[in-house]
Amino acid sequence: MKTVKVGVLGLGTVSRGAVEILATNATEISRRCGADIQVTHAVVRDQSKARAYLDEQGYSITLMDDASALVTHADVDIVCEAMGGMEPARTLLLQALSAGKHVVTANKALIALHGNELFQCARDNKVSVLFEPAVAGGIPIIKAVREGLAANRIESLAGIINGTGNFILSEMSSKGREFAEVLAEAQALGYAEADPSFDVDGIDAAHKITILASMAFGIPLQFERTLIEGISSIDKLDVGYAAELGYVIKHLGVARRRDEGIEVRVHPTLIPSDKLIANVNGVLNAVLVQGDAVGSTLYSGAGAGGGATGSAVVADIIDIARAMPGALAVPPLAFEDLEATPVLEASDYRCRYYLRAQVQDRPGVIAEISRILGDAGISIQALLQHPSEDKMVPVVLLTGAVREGDLAQALARIAALDVVSGTPVRLRVEHFD
Amino acid sequence: MKTVKVGVLGLGTVSRGAVEILATNATEISRRCGADIQVTHAVVRDQSKARAYLDEQGYSITLMDDASALVTHADVDIVCEAMGGMEPARTLLLQALSAGKHVVTANKALIALHGNELFQCARDNKVSVLFEPAVAGGIPIIKAVREGLAANRIESLAGIINGTGNFILSEMSSKGREFAEVLAEAQALGYAEADPSFDVDGIDAAHKITILASMAFGIPLQFERTLIEGISSIDKLDVGYAAELGYVIKHLGVARRRDEGIEVRVHPTLIPSDKLIANVNGVLNAVLVQGDAVGSTLYSGAGAGGGATGSAVVADIIDIARAMPGALAVPPLAFEDLEATPVLEASDYRCRYYLRAQVQDRPGVIAEISRILGDAGISIQALLQHPSEDKMVPVVLLTGAVREGDLAQALARIAALDVVSGTPVRLRVEHFD
Repeated sequence: MKTVKVGVLGLGTVSRGAVEILATNATEISRRCGADIQVTHAVVRDQSKARAYLDEQGYSITLMDDASALVTHADVDIVCEAMGGMEPARTLLLQALSAGKHVVTANKALIALHGNELFQCARDNKVSVLFEPAVAGGIPIIKAVREGLAANRIESLAGIINGTGNFILSEMSSKGREFAEVLAEAQALGYAEADPSFDVDGIDAAHKITILASMAFGIPLQFERTLIEGISSIDKLDVGYAAELGYVIKHLGVARRRDEGIEVRVHPTLIPSDKLIANVNGVLNAVLVQGDAVGSTLYSGAGAGGGATGSAVVADIIDIARAMPGALAVPPLAFEDLEATPVLEASDYRCRYYLRAQVQDRPGVIAEISRILGDAGISIQALLQHPSEDKMVPVVLLTGAVREGDLAQALARIAALDVVSGTPVRLRVEHFD
Repeated sequence: MKTVKVGVLGLGTVSRGAVEILATNATEISRRCGADIQVTHAVVRDQSKARAYLDEQGYSITLMDDASALVTHADVDIVCEAMGGMEPARTLLLQALSAGKHVVTANKALIALHGNELFQCARDNKVSVLFEPAVAGGIPIIKAVREGLAANRIESLAGIINGTGNFILSEMSSKGREFAEVLAEAQALGYAEADPSFDVDGIDAAHKITILASMAFGIPLQFERTLIEGISSIDKLDVGYAAELGYVIKHLGVARRRDEGIEVRVHPTLIPSDKLIANVNGVLNAVLVQGDAVGSTLYSGAGAGGGATGSAVVADIIDIARAMPGALAVPPLAFEDLEATPVLEASDYRCRYYLRAQVQDRPGVIAEISRILGDAGISIQALLQHPSEDKMVPVVLLTGAVREGDLAQALARIAALDVVSGTPVRLRVEHFD
């Protein structure tokens, strides 16, 4: 049986998950891939901590100081990167690929920002770069888009791809809690980092949707063109009104093909509550893919954690081991050549909208707002106004599909009305029809 | 660019789906796989009907009479079989493989019954046999189990893998309708065949779970050991009681690893209604896979139809085209070598149960039933009895996990009680915890 040797950069949650799976399921994995997979070397920040861990587990992995030496080591076939950040990860992986090593990485930020360069380097050196662990943890969504749905012209893709955000919104929705309170709990539970901005501001989800969009549509990775809105301003009032209208609010990454180009965006989104993806709760992830032939398919599971992400790392290692000594026959971004289909300007996106404005409770106000929307060619699909004792009352509206630039202009006119106080709330709606 | 030539056996819904996808998405597909894929030949039953179809679509595919000639034709690299049935499909595919052709088949019955022989023949001839279209239509579940979850020791797998059955149970559940009435509608809508037995008796689902079980656990295909129960005896009364207890009834294929061996079974099943898979309705399919590392992942989408199944056929063709001139590096049943882990006798399966008995409405009856269950070591987890004017009333019970043989004995004792009339209803329950 052939032996495949893996060198690991970083020995945190993800790498430990992978190392433990490779040890626990060694027999089953060799039966699957006809190879004996061994983690031979690791580079870590804190050698004494890593040494204690390895001794405790009984793993014989050589700890090294010099990451450059690891990625070019004769006894390493595959470099597994789970150190995170841009540098030195980028330079090390370029070095590894140039030395003829295959690469598996869990580093979504690195792929989203420097993937084009890494994939070109891999192609030049006839080796593979795989990154299943970078998106949606253990759900094999990269493989599904790259291979399982390869017959399809993908029309859209939408995902709950940040578990922390989904946990927060699920709690707000099921228990009527406030954002800040649930965030604090998520931090206490270890779901959210001390600095939660990557999760709640949508950066993490934006890295992932950038990667998925590129694979779905065969375009270069363009993180800088992804629209990003977070969930920190979600008011529990809107969660309640959404429910009343038959919707659930989820933080989605969305990529959609339109005639003019492609939309890539991350934002809180109202979804009809009877859709399967609306019922994916807690820290779970899910991705909904719409293909022209297959229709809608949904993929759901754990998006984070050592077991789930380690599962994806090891699946990639097995793919490479099966193909060795060659590289995989499938291109990293699903297409052999990437097209220049433009990613649209955000103002050219089209979406349905949920709007909430605080207005004076007197006759004619709804008519004024309706007239502004009507002038802009925006239809009203639903309207909610509750009787109140207060002078100011909320008006909630669902619009038809509208160009975002047009919506923004109409909304500015509405905000400027005397009868309206404060800035109206504006959330996107997706029906997935 | 390399050209890959496909010969098609049968030109019904599935083949037409595949042929149309290959035509419509030709550019996108070549960009994905770096090959130009052409359907060159087809063998059909009715040439004049096929000729009319091909002319209407403008496809230039050579129609042949002789299937043996097609599967050995020099201008065919991949044989795509969608004729169905055992013979001549089996003989033709063996002939194709022996002639060095790769094979893609949508024929679940053939794989479930003769897959072991076909895969051995493919191995001997260093070619690939793929069968993604055979299970759950367009959902890439074969690929997910074979590759995406390859790091995992799979613990269980459960699927709604027959769309007709799911449509019928969904209608019964959401609208309180009777089985026979919904079946008639399904036939009128074209979801169910004139002879619906393959669907409603569970044979079709049994073929699929046999295949999935083999790939999940690395055991030879053993259709003959699969427990099969259909849905035709499901009473809308039980659908109602299940709902009252917080459950939905679905027709599931289940494969589960236990210390003693493996359970492979198809039967109506109560699922807690808050589980995602319980909310997969209509003709949709879904498969839930439990892996030791990744935890639960769910895959959902269309299980039938030309578009969905054609999507799976073409995905397999693309996989082969990407790997050509070689064969795929991944073994058809996910494991390089299959183990002899036994599939258990049905009486040794363990499951929770839903029981309904029609009993005399007088004191002491529940006590008698409880005593029989208690004597057999079967715990009662929930009990439902509604006041009634009738002399006979239904008692509904949920049990803890029990060996099926023990349950059967206890149930025979209950049925023999004077106070019980008729045969008690018995349905399995799965919690997926």
